[in-house]
Amino acid sequence: ASLLGEWQRRNATRTLPHCVDQLDASGALDNLRRVTGEVGGAHQNMWFADSDVYKTLEAAAWQLGRTPDDAALRSFVDSTAALLAGAIDADGYLNSHITLVKPEQRWQELHWSHELYCAGHLIQAAVAAARAGVGAELLPTARRFADLIVARFSAVDDVDGHPEIETALVELYRVTGHRPYLDLARRFLDLRGHGLLNGERFGSAYLQDHVPVRRAQAVAGHVVRQLYLLAGVVDVAVETHDDELLDAAHRLWDDAFGAKTYLTGAQGSRHRDEAFGDPYELPPDRAYGETCAGIASFQWNWRMLLATGDARYADEMERALHNVIAGSTALDGTHFFYSNPLHLRTGHDGSHEDAPSQRLPWYSCACCPPNLARLVASLSGYAVTTDHSGLQVHLYAAGTVETTVDGSAVRVSTRTDYPWDGRVELTVATEAPLVLALRMPGWCPVADVRVDGAPVQAGAVRDGYLRLRRDWSGGATVTLDLPMPARVVRPHPRIDAVRGCVALTRGPLVYCLEQADLPAGVTLEDVRVDPAAPIAVDRLADIPVVLRARGAIEQPGSAALYTASAPTAPRTEPLALTAVPYFLWGNRVPGPMRVWLPVTTTG
Amino acid sequence: ASLLGEWQRRNATRTLPHCVDQLDASGALDNLRRVTGEVGGAHQNMWFADSDVYKTLEAAAWQLGRTPDDAALRSFVDSTAALLAGAIDADGYLNSHITLVKPEQRWQELHWSHELYCAGHLIQAAVAAARAGVGAELLPTARRFADLIVARFSAVDDVDGHPEIETALVELYRVTGHRPYLDLARRFLDLRGHGLLNGERFGSAYLQDHVPVRRAQAVAGHVVRQLYLLAGVVDVAVETHDDELLDAAHRLWDDAFGAKTYLTGAQGSRHRDEAFGDPYELPPDRAYGETCAGIASFQWNWRMLLATGDARYADEMERALHNVIAGSTALDGTHFFYSNPLHLRTGHDGSHEDAPSQRLPWYSCACCPPNLARLVASLSGYAVTTDHSGLQVHLYAAGTVETTVDGSAVRVSTRTDYPWDGRVELTVATEAPLVLALRMPGWCPVADVRVDGAPVQAGAVRDGYLRLRRDWSGGATVTLDLPMPARVVRPHPRIDAVRGCVALTRGPLVYCLEQADLPAGVTLEDVRVDPAAPIAVDRLADIPVVLRARGAIEQPGSAALYTASAPTAPRTEPLALTAVPYFLWGNRVPGPMRVWLPVTTTG
Repeated sequence: ASLLGEWQRRNATRTLPHCVDQLDASGALDNLRRVTGEVGGAHQNMWFADSDVYKTLEAAAWQLGRTPDDAALRSFVDSTAALLAGAIDADGYLNSHITLVKPEQRWQELHWSHELYCAGHLIQAAVAAARAGVGAELLPTARRFADLIVARFSAVDDVDGHPEIETALVELYRVTGHRPYLDLARRFLDLRGHGLLNGERFGSAYLQDHVPVRRAQAVAGHVVRQLYLLAGVVDVAVETHDDELLDAAHRLWDDAFGAKTYLTGAQGSRHRDEAFGDPYELPPDRAYGETCAGIASFQWNWRMLLATGDARYADEMERALHNVIAGSTALDGTHFFYSNPLHLRTGHDGSHEDAPSQRLPWYSCACCPPNLARLVASLSGYAVTTDHSGLQVHLYAAGTVETTVDGSAVRVSTRTDYPWDGRVELTVATEAPLVLALRMPGWCPVADVRVDGAPVQAGAVRDGYLRLRRDWSGGATVTLDLPMPARVVRPHPRIDAVRGCVALTRGPLVYCLEQADLPAGVTLEDVRVDPAAPIAVDRLADIPVVLRARGAIEQPGSAALYTASAPTAPRTEPLALTAVPYFLWGNRVPGPMRVWLPVTTTG
Repeated sequence: ASLLGEWQRRNATRTLPHCVDQLDASGALDNLRRVTGEVGGAHQNMWFADSDVYKTLEAAAWQLGRTPDDAALRSFVDSTAALLAGAIDADGYLNSHITLVKPEQRWQELHWSHELYCAGHLIQAAVAAARAGVGAELLPTARRFADLIVARFSAVDDVDGHPEIETALVELYRVTGHRPYLDLARRFLDLRGHGLLNGERFGSAYLQDHVPVRRAQAVAGHVVRQLYLLAGVVDVAVETHDDELLDAAHRLWDDAFGAKTYLTGAQGSRHRDEAFGDPYELPPDRAYGETCAGIASFQWNWRMLLATGDARYADEMERALHNVIAGSTALDGTHFFYSNPLHLRTGHDGSHEDAPSQRLPWYSCACCPPNLARLVASLSGYAVTTDHSGLQVHLYAAGTVETTVDGSAVRVSTRTDYPWDGRVELTVATEAPLVLALRMPGWCPVADVRVDGAPVQAGAVRDGYLRLRRDWSGGATVTLDLPMPARVVRPHPRIDAVRGCVALTRGPLVYCLEQADLPAGVTLEDVRVDPAAPIAVDRLADIPVVLRARGAIEQPGSAALYTASAPTAPRTEPLALTAVPYFLWGNRVPGPMRVWLPVTTTG
C-alpha cells in the first residue's frame, strides 16, 4: 500500500477505534448520557469535551463512506446520533457542560464557553454524515441547533471566543442550501474584532478580537483559533463573492507563510498562549506546532486552493500533511503528539504533558487525536478535484478516482510510491476531451512528464499546474517524474533561532537526526553537518528512504557558557550521519532529535 | 554621584514612593484594612498581594536606615506596622485573602495559597526593620505569626508551593537566636520533594516538589521558586553545618550557571510556567528573565559567596545587578519590566503585559517593583563584608564604609566611576593590621594594583580576591585599575539560539543595539557586526559610555522563508554601529533591541 493508503488503513483500524474507546473512558460520552439521564454523576473532562465526540463522529462518518461494512463503526455512529437526538433540548440547544453545570450561563460566557465551537463541530459531523450517506439522524439534530443559533445570533451581537462555527455554517449552507446559515457565518466574521469578547485573561488578540479580520495585517493570537477563523473567511468570501474578505485571507496568508511557519508546516512559535510569535520567531526546540494547528492550516490552504487554483496552497497542504501532521501520530496509530517541536534537546524535561519526549496515548485536552482521525479519514477528498473543464490532481498517492467531468465518466488510476519515489503513473480512461491538471510541487524545479512515453512541454504550467488538454479516448498513461535528490535547505537569515544551520529534505519530506542513529556517547547538540558534501539515499529496516550525509562531532573547546577569549577550536571528529524522515521520529527509542543541523565550522 | 549611589537615590525618591502609592491604588493596603474593619468591600488584587505590602515595607525599613529623617517613609512604616499589629488574628495568623475570602481554607491550599510565602515576606520586613532600628512593632507581629507557624508545621507535614519562608525563618533565627525557626526552615527543606503538594495544574517540578533538594541534579520549574528555595538551602546549610545541603546548592549552581543563565544574568528561558528551560535553551527573544528571578539569583549568589568566599558568586551578583536587574527599571524610576528579553523583535506584538515593548508603571501581578525597591534600598549591605581578619570588597562603588574589624575601627573611602571606568581608589584608615580583600572580577584578566603608588604582586589572588595583608596605620591608598576594553563575547556552541552571533561587553556591562541608533529604514534583524574590527569607546548625551563598532546591513537576497537553492549573496552595505548599555535600553524611543549580534557573512 502507498503511504497515504497505509495511513488511512491505520487510521481506520487503530486510531479511530482508539478515539471511540477514549471517548468512553474519558467520560465525554457519559456527559451527553447525563443530559439524557442515562447516566448519573457530575460532568467530567473539559468543558468543551462534546467537541471530541463530534470530531470522532465526523471521522467515523468519513470512514463509513469508505468502509460501509464496518459494523462497529456504524454502531458507534448510529448510537451516538441517537444519543445526540435524545440530548438536544426541546428548543434545540445542545451542550452538556452548560446544561449540566451552569444552565443559567447559556450564551453568557462565550469568550470561554466554546458553545458555538462545539456546535460547529456537531455541524461538521452532520455535514460529513450527510455527504457520506450515514447517520441520517445527525443532520436534523445539527440543523435544530443551527436554527436556534440563527434565531438568537441574528438578533444579538455576540461571537464565540473559539472560531469554528463560521466554516461549519457555510458547510451546512452548502449541504442544505439554506441561506441564513451563510448569512450568520458572515455576520460572525464581521462582529469579530470589535471587542465583544471579554479578553481579560489572555488579551483580545488571543481571540482574534483585536481588529476586524477585514483590516487585519497579521496573523495573531491562539493559532488554531486564527486558522479556523481564516477557513471561515475563505468560505464566506467564496460563497458571497466578497473580494475584500478574500484579500484579507491573502494578506494574512502572506504573513503566516512568509514569516511564521516552520519548515515542517507547523505553526505556533509559543507554548505560552499557544500563539503565533513575532515575525521570524521560529525556535525549533520551543516550537509549539500544535497538531490541530497543522490540521487547521491544511484546511485553510485547501480553501485557498479551491478559491484560487494556485498550487502554492497545495504545496503547503503537502508540507503540513507529510511532516507536522504525519509526525504527530506514532506508527502504532494510538500515540500522539500535541506539540510538534523540531528539536528535542539532550536533557529535555518532558514531564509536562504539552511537551513530552514521546507520544502519549491521550491528553486531558484531547482535541488533537480526533482531529487527526477526521482528517485522515477524509484525506482522499483532498487529493483530486474536478471542474467543468477537467480534473486536477493536488496530492499524489496510489489509488483510483472514478468521477464525472461535464457529464462524462472519468477514471484515473495512479501508481506511485510517492513520497518515497517521485515517479507517478496516471492511467486516464475517459471518452471526452478534458484537461488533466497535475500539480508541479514547489520543491521540484524540473519535472519530466510524458504521455504514453512522449515528452510534454513544461510550458503548459500555470499557477503551478501542468495542464494536459487532450482527447483521452482510448485511454492514455501519463508519467510524471519528479526528481527527488536530497536537498540542503537554508533558512531566511532573520530566523535567528536556526542561523548557521541547514535542514535536509527530499521531495516533500523533511528529515531529522535522531539520537538512535548516533554512536554511543555522542551528544546530539555537538553534531555538525557538512552541507557541501554529497548526500546519499539509502534505506533502513523500517524506513524506506534515509539520507546519509557527512558531518562531524565538534566538542566545544571550553565549557564556559560565554567567553571573551579568542574562540577555541573545537575537538573535531568526522561522523557519518543518517537522517530519517521527521514524521517517523520517536518511533524507535525515545531520545533527542533535531531537524536544523549546525554546519561544520570548517565545512 | 556614582551609578549605584544615583540608583539608590532614585529608588528612595521615585521608586519607593511610587510603590507606596501603588499599594494604596491597587487595594493591597485596603485588604489589610478590611481585616481590621477600617475599610469595607471585598478583597481586591492578587491573593498574595499582602507580600507586595511586606516587600515595600522591607524596602522602606532599609531606606529609613539610610535616611532616618524621611518623615513620609517613617509614617508609612509606622502606620503599616500598626495596621499589621491590628490585622493579625488573636492566634497569630495573618493573611488578608484567606481571612476575607475563605477562612475555612486556612493552610488547606498550600500548593497555591502563598500563605507561608507571604509570611516569609512579613518576616523579612520585620528582620529589615530590626536591623535598621525602625518600625519596632513589626518584629513582635512577625514573631507571633512565626510562632504560630512553628507550632503548626512542626507537627504537620506540609510545605508551601512558593518557597520564601525557609530563608525568612533563618533570618529571623539570626535576629532572635530562637532555634525553632531554624529547625522549621530545615524541616520545610526536607519535607519538599516528597509529593506533599498538589501538582495537578503545573506539575510537581514547577513547585520543586519532584525530588528532595538534597538529591536534585538540576534546577527546574518556576525560576523564582527554585531560587528562593536555594537561598534557604544555603542559609540552613551554613547555620546547621550541613555539607550535604551545601553540596546540593553547588550542584544546582553549576547547572544553573553552566547551562541556564543569560549573558545579562537573567534566568528563565520560558514564558510558559515562568520556567528554567532545558540545558542551553536560551532564546534571546523569548527570554522570560523575570526581574524577581534576577533579584533572587543575586540573593542566592550572595549566600553562596558568604558560605564559600569565592568571587565567582560575586561575579554573578555583579552581572545580574548591572544588567538584568538594573535594566528592569526605567530611568524615571517608576516604570518596570517584568520580563527582560535580550532581543525585542521588529514587529513585536507587545500587547500582552508580560512581554510589553516598554516598561509599564505597574503590573496586575506586582511582585517585581517592590522587590526592586527592597534590593536597591539594601544594596550597600552587599558591597563589603568583614570577618575577624579583615574587610572584603565585593562590589565597587563610590562611598565610605565605617566598621570594625576584630575590635578596631576601620574606614574605607572609595572613589570610582565604576562601572563606567575601571579605576577604583580605596583610602584605608585603621590602626590595626588587617587583610583588605579586593575582588578581581572574572571579566578582567589582568588588573594593576598599587598601594600608595607601589605595584602589588598579583600572586596574592585566591578565590578571586587579591588579599592585601599589611599594617594600615597612618592610612594608605589602594589603587585598582581594572582595564575595560570593549570585549567581543561568544556563546557556548550548544546555545543554538545565538549561533553565529557575538555580544559586545565592557567591564561588567552587556551592550545592545537599539533601533534608535540605526539609520531610518534599517531593520534591526538585518544588521551585522564585524567581530574582528576595532571597537571604539565613546559617549552619547545621556550615556557615559557607548561602543562604536563596525558592521553592515545585510539584506536577504530572497524573501523566501526556506530555500534549497544555492545561498544568494545578501545585498551588503557597511554600517557604523553604536551599542548602548543593555540596562539603559528602551529609555529613549521604544523600539527593537538586541544583545546578540549576528556577525558579518564576510567578516
